[in-house]
Amino acid sequence: MAIKREYDVVIIGGGPAGLTAGIYTARARLKSLLIERGATGGLIVNAGVVENYPGFPDGINGLELAEAMHQQAVKFGLETLTADVTGLELKDERRVVKTSEGDVAARAVIVAGGSDRVKLGVPGEEEFTGRGVAYCAICDGYFYRDVPVAVVGGGNAAVNEALELTKFASRVTIIHRREELRATKILQERAFAEPKIEFSWNTVVEAVEGEDTVKKLRLKNVQNGEKSTLDISGVFMAVGFRPNTGYLKSVLTLADDGTVITNEKMETAVPGIFAAGDIRSSSIRQVAAAVGDGSVAAIYAERYIAAK
Amino acid sequence: MAIKREYDVVIIGGGPAGLTAGIYTARARLKSLLIERGATGGLIVNAGVVENYPGFPDGINGLELAEAMHQQAVKFGLETLTADVTGLELKDERRVVKTSEGDVAARAVIVAGGSDRVKLGVPGEEEFTGRGVAYCAICDGYFYRDVPVAVVGGGNAAVNEALELTKFASRVTIIHRREELRATKILQERAFAEPKIEFSWNTVVEAVEGEDTVKKLRLKNVQNGEKSTLDISGVFMAVGFRPNTGYLKSVLTLADDGTVITNEKMETAVPGIFAAGDIRSSSIRQVAAAVGDGSVAAIYAERYIAAK
Repeated sequence: MAIKREYDVVIIGGGPAGLTAGIYTARARLKSLLIERGATGGLIVNAGVVENYPGFPDGINGLELAEAMHQQAVKFGLETLTADVTGLELKDERRVVKTSEGDVAARAVIVAGGSDRVKLGVPGEEEFTGRGVAYCAICDGYFYRDVPVAVVGGGNAAVNEALELTKFASRVTIIHRREELRATKILQERAFAEPKIEFSWNTVVEAVEGEDTVKKLRLKNVQNGEKSTLDISGVFMAVGFRPNTGYLKSVLTLADDGTVITNEKMETAVPGIFAAGDIRSSSIRQVAAAVGDGSVAAIYAERYIAAK
Repeated sequence: MAIKREYDVVIIGGGPAGLTAGIYTARARLKSLLIERGATGGLIVNAGVVENYPGFPDGINGLELAEAMHQQAVKFGLETLTADVTGLELKDERRVVKTSEGDVAARAVIVAGGSDRVKLGVPGEEEFTGRGVAYCAICDGYFYRDVPVAVVGGGNAAVNEALELTKFASRVTIIHRREELRATKILQERAFAEPKIEFSWNTVVEAVEGEDTVKKLRLKNVQNGEKSTLDISGVFMAVGFRPNTGYLKSVLTLADDGTVITNEKMETAVPGIFAAGDIRSSSIRQVAAAVGDGSVAAIYAERYIAAK
């Protein structure tokens, strides 16, 4: 498809990292376009109250925060396009973003497409998201003080979530479909030594149930088929993330888990391509960090363009 | 002095980086203390309106933003201490922060003391700060659209400020006390090629004058003693930063400019000592980035403590 538009900077992804990058590049008077698949905001749109983004002592609704960031970026002149990104190509000094709405060329590209949470796909999971079904202990653990919770998964992420939750919850049950953890040895040792953590081995969740909020999980033992229920007030899904980086494979070497490797200037291995937010390999998956990444990527993208 | 108090985490510095770290460590139920010399807030307290911190589409007063972050951190249990930090020592597994109010021990320390701007020290500079006297083109350049401005200095920072300002101002005069720039060759070439940039060589500022806001600079040629005035609407001081790291020299090897070197986890070379914000070597000196640093430092400090 022919190139429809030319920009100084194209930002892929409309979560906090992308919107922050847009605030910075647009305010620096660079012609800037942000491409997003659907509504802007990224994962925080579903976050309910965000308590740990600095500047809002009473917390702020994730959707409201996303809308405020979006409004701020548009005010400084950020343009937006709703489209699916299907590819990224290098053409001499231009980086060409291929989208469902045509090709867009840029002098610098900031990839900030975040990552999707892998869902269990069981009944009740969608319905109770934000009301007992959670995906981030650092974000939401604080809301589960002195009540029992469960963590689903057996890798490093699951054990880290469980350990973090022991600070808040009265009991943490790790539900894992195998009979041993995949997490590194040191994390396993810490989990086994923690009196608040219990294990439900060879077990899968069949349904999340509740009323206003989650009350219990329906479980099934995959070895003997036995069914049971577990009373909990919250369940943290820690079965993985899937970074939105499929279209980058032809241009960038990705980490094993599909994330993008950058240095501390948010530069990838390809000049003129920067990355920010949850898409990065070392991301801590927090709004505050995504915003930091976005500002750094924007400033180094600006310097990159100026130096050409 | 004997150790008066013991904490999980001690944070040195109450700007956005330190306060964000405090929000995170306190919310993670780590016993946390933030030590600040004076009022909290760091440099943003003097910033006037902050337009590029994401989440506030109409901008927010720097002091208000600092107070909101402070309130948020205290709400989650962050303790604060007003004191001068005079040293940092390693004692086995503890990091001991020496202060004017006694010693404080911690399992992990986050240094986030920022850096002071070097001031010219001329009449009018203090008086007009925030009303025409500025220290950051990325932050404030946007306010000087289509008016003439000056930049004081001749190093990389000064030339970068001037180049950034060409996007907004009608004319940018670089005022430098020597007859050539200290900036790297490539930056010099870009400045010389930029039609909006003029140079005032061998010149120093003797006074900043104005009414409500800055109107002109009183200049003096240091070679022939000739005096002159320059009509401008803004003057950006770019004569340097002085990181608040004197007390760290005995523990950490600092960069040549006194800043602290970290990796992308905000770890310094000494286990259990982290750094965040403008004190870091690669800092872009932006609230958004400081907040990002603070969240990352807090999470890795937490993991460091948990792994001991």
